[in-house]
Amino acid sequence: MTDRYLEDFAVGQTFRSGRRYIDKERIKTFAAEFDPQPFHLDEDAARNTIFGGLAASGWHTAAVSMRLLVDSDIKPAGGIVGAGFDELLWPRPVRPGDELRVESEVLEVRPSRSRPDQGLIKVRTTTLNQNDEAVQVTIGNLLVQRRPVATETV
Amino acid sequence: MTDRYLEDFAVGQTFRSGRRYIDKERIKTFAAEFDPQPFHLDEDAARNTIFGGLAASGWHTAAVSMRLLVDSDIKPAGGIVGAGFDELLWPRPVRPGDELRVESEVLEVRPSRSRPDQGLIKVRTTTLNQNDEAVQVTIGNLLVQRRPVATETV
Repeated sequence: MTDRYLEDFAVGQTFRSGRRYIDKERIKTFAAEFDPQPFHLDEDAARNTIFGGLAASGWHTAAVSMRLLVDSDIKPAGGIVGAGFDELLWPRPVRPGDELRVESEVLEVRPSRSRPDQGLIKVRTTTLNQNDEAVQVTIGNLLVQRRPVATETV
Repeated sequence: MTDRYLEDFAVGQTFRSGRRYIDKERIKTFAAEFDPQPFHLDEDAARNTIFGGLAASGWHTAAVSMRLLVDSDIKPAGGIVGAGFDELLWPRPVRPGDELRVESEVLEVRPSRSRPDQGLIKVRTTTLNQNDEAVQVTIGNLLVQRRPVATETV
């Protein structure tokens, strides 16, 4: 599929991804490197915490969600480049064996005031588990290239 | 150091971390798993992109920042549990060889209305490189346990 320029995006468009399985061992190794807290590292230690059992680090969920978004058909020209997020929520934990997917909806499309070759799209991306429960919601602003003006050939 | 209960936090408190080196190969392997885009995977391919050279995935920066925060002296009782973020920005790219650290400032402290044993602190966490330039800014809401009421012993 061809990459989308700013002019190809419109409010209300939605994009979906494939699925990705969350492996118990990867939850633990990700946490050991980036988020070494008992509820992300060990089933027994996790039992008496707020999570009541082993849960993926939110940053692991965020990273997997990014992978799903990159592999989805949203495909902005110039790549997926986040200028910043207005919101990032983890409404429920991700558990070993979950299968995640993302759904994105375009909320805003606007040209950049300072850079005539660029624009921004505001996108809500919801990460869902196999029961269609939201495990992450982000509202992000992505930089998108504008369609190059065709050079006139006489 | 003892973990901090909600009652131990106050607006204006700041916490600092140690430093963590960002390795070029880890930038690429993180990206290959979670954010496989040219500007995060390959120096040559990155040169003609918006980043003008290899840059870490923002989610890699976020994960490293979490590790720095976990290892810092903020230490909320019950662990660092994010209820959600009001803001997440990456003001400049993280490059191979950067050394990152975090600084956190408590912006708000409030008891939970629905759960008498819990509260929330709002924390701005800035990730800085070796030149003291901000590479990530988050404003997050962390769940923190309240200090248990001592049982009276006669």
